[in-house]
Order: sequence, then structure tokens, then C-alpha cells
Amino acid sequence: MKILFASNAGSSDDSWISLLQTALPDTEILSWNETNETTGAELAIVWRPDATLLSREPNLKAIFNLGAGVDGILKLPGLHDGIEIYRLEDAGMSVQMAEYCAHAVLDASRRFADYRALQAQGQWKTMAPIQRHRWPIGVLGLGLMGERVAQTLSALEYPVSGWSRSQKSIPGIQCFAGSDTFEAFLKQTRVLINILPLTPETHGILNKETLSQLLPNAYVINVARGEHLVDDDLLALMDAGHIDGATLDVFTEEPLPAAHPFWTHPKVTITPHIAAASLRDQTVAQISDKIRAWSRGETVSGRVNLQTGY
Amino acid sequence: MKILFASNAGSSDDSWISLLQTALPDTEILSWNETNETTGAELAIVWRPDATLLSREPNLKAIFNLGAGVDGILKLPGLHDGIEIYRLEDAGMSVQMAEYCAHAVLDASRRFADYRALQAQGQWKTMAPIQRHRWPIGVLGLGLMGERVAQTLSALEYPVSGWSRSQKSIPGIQCFAGSDTFEAFLKQTRVLINILPLTPETHGILNKETLSQLLPNAYVINVARGEHLVDDDLLALMDAGHIDGATLDVFTEEPLPAAHPFWTHPKVTITPHIAAASLRDQTVAQISDKIRAWSRGETVSGRVNLQTGY
Repeated sequence: MKILFASNAGSSDDSWISLLQTALPDTEILSWNETNETTGAELAIVWRPDATLLSREPNLKAIFNLGAGVDGILKLPGLHDGIEIYRLEDAGMSVQMAEYCAHAVLDASRRFADYRALQAQGQWKTMAPIQRHRWPIGVLGLGLMGERVAQTLSALEYPVSGWSRSQKSIPGIQCFAGSDTFEAFLKQTRVLINILPLTPETHGILNKETLSQLLPNAYVINVARGEHLVDDDLLALMDAGHIDGATLDVFTEEPLPAAHPFWTHPKVTITPHIAAASLRDQTVAQISDKIRAWSRGETVSGRVNLQTGY
Repeated sequence: MKILFASNAGSSDDSWISLLQTALPDTEILSWNETNETTGAELAIVWRPDATLLSREPNLKAIFNLGAGVDGILKLPGLHDGIEIYRLEDAGMSVQMAEYCAHAVLDASRRFADYRALQAQGQWKTMAPIQRHRWPIGVLGLGLMGERVAQTLSALEYPVSGWSRSQKSIPGIQCFAGSDTFEAFLKQTRVLINILPLTPETHGILNKETLSQLLPNAYVINVARGEHLVDDDLLALMDAGHIDGATLDVFTEEPLPAAHPFWTHPKVTITPHIAAASLRDQTVAQISDKIRAWSRGETVSGRVNLQTGY
């Protein structure tokens, strides 16, 4: 069986292909970047694939994504119901998301950024200890990663709620579901963590109307996709004093353009899309497991629903 | 019954005394700072009490400490076996310790400090994702707070071990016990978190000999007492390149003197003894519970053993 490896991640394909070939010895793994014509492959393993993928490879029956977010696949020209899409599940990413979000929350709630500034000024000054009930956290998106983020912060005794499209039940987490409850969820949230999939419904979901419903002195953490956030609305609400700050890992254009105000805004912390990396060994193991199961005709977990988009 | 409230914390006694008096209506609570002569009190509630406490108050039968570390009481002139000492247990402190240590670990392991520097330089640059097995954490001291710190970091999938005087058993944590195992504990630790009580045996325990046994590129976090650490030995090991950095919340002299090299050392993060504050409401509730139980002749938890010093 031929499998096409099609990544636009920028790094070399060689070590990925070598690891996948070892894990799937009965297949032939071909590199998109080294192939200029149709391979006839039935399967593709992709990350941010080229827009011509489906026109050049009409035989594809299934695509396996090297990440959790499949927005790059769903916008491929020529996508149709006959192509199954599978996304990476966890593979070491959820704990990284939990770490990233916990660090960002603590930097704000425990005022570590302020303490760093005091050290730089040579000042010994104690600020009032945290009052946890004043830092209610709302996690937008309760998939594998959102659930792990919510549980990690709940274990640190923050009040945590979550919102998702369909009703979830997570011990210790107040779960809101569906668009009817979105306003109520926002109104009781001070720290908003976005970890939603990017779909037509969630595009621009963090905007002036929604963000202004957060509690005063709000804080925004975006670890999902840049397109969820309307940058200018966040900037306006920070400058108006309703939002105290933001930690952003993802941007509509990456790398973030040098002239973007996020780079130098004193209330914004940015990182270059590093909140959660899929770890190569775990990713190869999971993808090869999925492909073996698929080849045997078994049900494979992580199948993307084209209607909901995740 | 008379209870003496003796705090040198610097803030006003009034609100503490008011809350304690409300919680213990059948007692008379007197302020050391407003009393210049012997009160005859049987009980004292203290924080960093004056050295003359025991000579001025010969009737004291029990002392209740407003914190977990009782080194300030154990060095009081005139202390004898006839005086029971009780320390605060948790009262909201262990979760704060866990937060503080998790934040410090993540700042190092996830390279958030480096990413802040990159943002300041306007640079979009991705560093390699964390390899957890390269960040083994060792927690020195496995009391209530040490255990919580260890569990929090273990939940984030770091390899965590702990060391204590007597053998402990904590799920998921490799527990070392006793001085015979101290070297083995250090040799497999990269991030050392100190949360020991300060006793004659642990004074200066973080020194050139012990710290040089940590794994290369070590990181030191001290949230216990400044006297545990030999400052010059840490500085020498950082300058020699064996230790990558340190986060320090406690110092032999507090406030840390303006001329101390920790203030400006590029590898040192300092905070002004804020890792875990005893929260007033929880502290008052716990101390008043202990005093009521003591008055009824019941066994009270948190009794300090004068031999071990904690």
C-alpha cells in the first residue's frame, strides 16, 4: 500500500518518513515534497497540506492529520464525503496544553509578571495573596485537551467552568453546552481559555461582543487558532481597561508580522505556536496504529465529522 | 482563659485579634504589642515572636504558630519540654506552594523566560518541545506541602522523586528516606525543590557538596527558609555552569539586602517570601479549632516534636 507523506511544516521530511516506514514496514511511504506527479496513494499523512493535494491525488480514501486541528484539511479544494479524515488525539499534547495554560493563569493570578518587574527595579514588595474565588476560569472547548486544561486548573483549586457544543460531564467542572448558554458562561468567567476547533461557527468567536461580557479585569488565553480572535477587538478592550491582559500562542498570520501591535503591547504575552507540539515518537506510534486498524477495516478513533468540522 | 497574640509580622494586630476573638468568644485575647507586662496567659498565638516571649510569659503551656515553619519558636530563649508547640497545617498554603513550584518549573522547562526575551526582541523562533524525561524533579521534604508539590508536578507527567527523614509512600512518587539515600536522590535530580523544615540538621543543607551532585543543567527552587541555602555556593555553581538557574522565595536576611548579588544575577528569579501565605480566614478557623480541642484536653494535630524540630 502506498502512503503519501505531505507536510508543509518546513522541516525535513526524512526523519518522519524513516520513522513511519519502520513502523509500517509493509507499506511504501512517499514524500510529497520529492514527488511531482500523482502517486496513486490511497492514504495520506499530512500537516498543513498543499492546496493541490486532492486534485493531484484522486485515489485518496483517508487522510491522517499530524495534529489535532484539521482546519487546514477542511479547506482543501475538492474535499468530499468519500474521504475519511482522522486527527491526532493527544499524543502528548494535552499535558503540554495544561502546562501552558496553567503557567499563563499563574503568571496573571499570582502576579509573577509583577514580581519580575519588582526584581528588575530592586524592590522588595509583597502583594496581597491570591483569592481564588476572584479568578473563575472558563475553558472554551472541552475535547481531550480542554478537559485536561480544566482538570489541571481545578486541581489547583480555581473555580473552573467549561463550554462546549454538546453537553459534557467532568467532575468538579461546571459544564455549559450549546449557544443558548454561551452568554451565561462568559458572564461568570474572568480568565477565558480558548481551545476550540476552528470551524465556520467558531471563526471570530472571540470578538468585542463576546469578550466584553467577561468579568471585569478579564484575561484571555488563546491556544487554539488565531482566526478565533478578532485582534482589534481584544486590543480595544484592553485599552479600555475591561481586559487586563492576554497570552496568545496562535495568530491569523504566522509568523506574526513584525508590525503587529501584539509584539510590543505591554499587556500581551506572545509565544510562537509552541503551546503543544505533537511529539514525534508518540505521533508516529499513534498514526501507525490508526493506519494498521484502518487497513484491517476496523473502526478508527479520531475520525473527523465533516458537518461539525472536528 | 487568656490568650496572648504575639506577632512581629509588621501588619496591625487588630483584624487578627478581632477575628480570633469572634471565633473564641469564651477567651480573652490580648495583644503583645499593646501589653508591656506579663499577662499570665496560658496560651499564645504567635508569628516570629519576640525573643523575650518566654521570660515575660512564664505561664505559657502551649504556643500556636501562625505558619508551618516553627524555626522562629524553636530558637526562643528559655524554651523547654513543658511547652507544647503546634504549627499551622496547610490552611491554603500547600496549593499555593504547588502553584509557585509548578510555575517556576515550567518557566525553566518550557523556556517561557526565553520566549519572553524573544518577544522583547521581536523574534519569532520556535525552540524544541520539552522532553519530560530530561527534567526529573526532586522534592526535598515530603510533609503536607512537599507532597502536594510532588503530586502536582507528577500530574503534569514529570518524573518526580522525593526525599524525607522518615520513609513516605506517595503514589507515583519515588520516595527516598534517610541520610543514607540523600546522595542517590541528588544524583538523579535535575530540578531540586526545597521545602524542608529548618532544623540544626537541615541548616545549610543546600551547599557546594550537595548541589554539585545534581544532574547537569540543574535548577534550584527554594521555598522553605533562606538558611537552608549557602548563597555563595549556589552562585559559584551557576557561574561554573553546573546549575542553570534558581528561583528563590526565601533568604537568610529578609528583605534581601539591596547589595546581594541575587537581585541582579541573570540566572536568579527572586520573590519576596510570597510562595505561600497563610490565608487569614482559614488560619483563624484552624487555630481556633485547635485551641478548642486543646482546652477540652483532646489530642491536637500539628504538634511539633522538639527533638526533630518539626
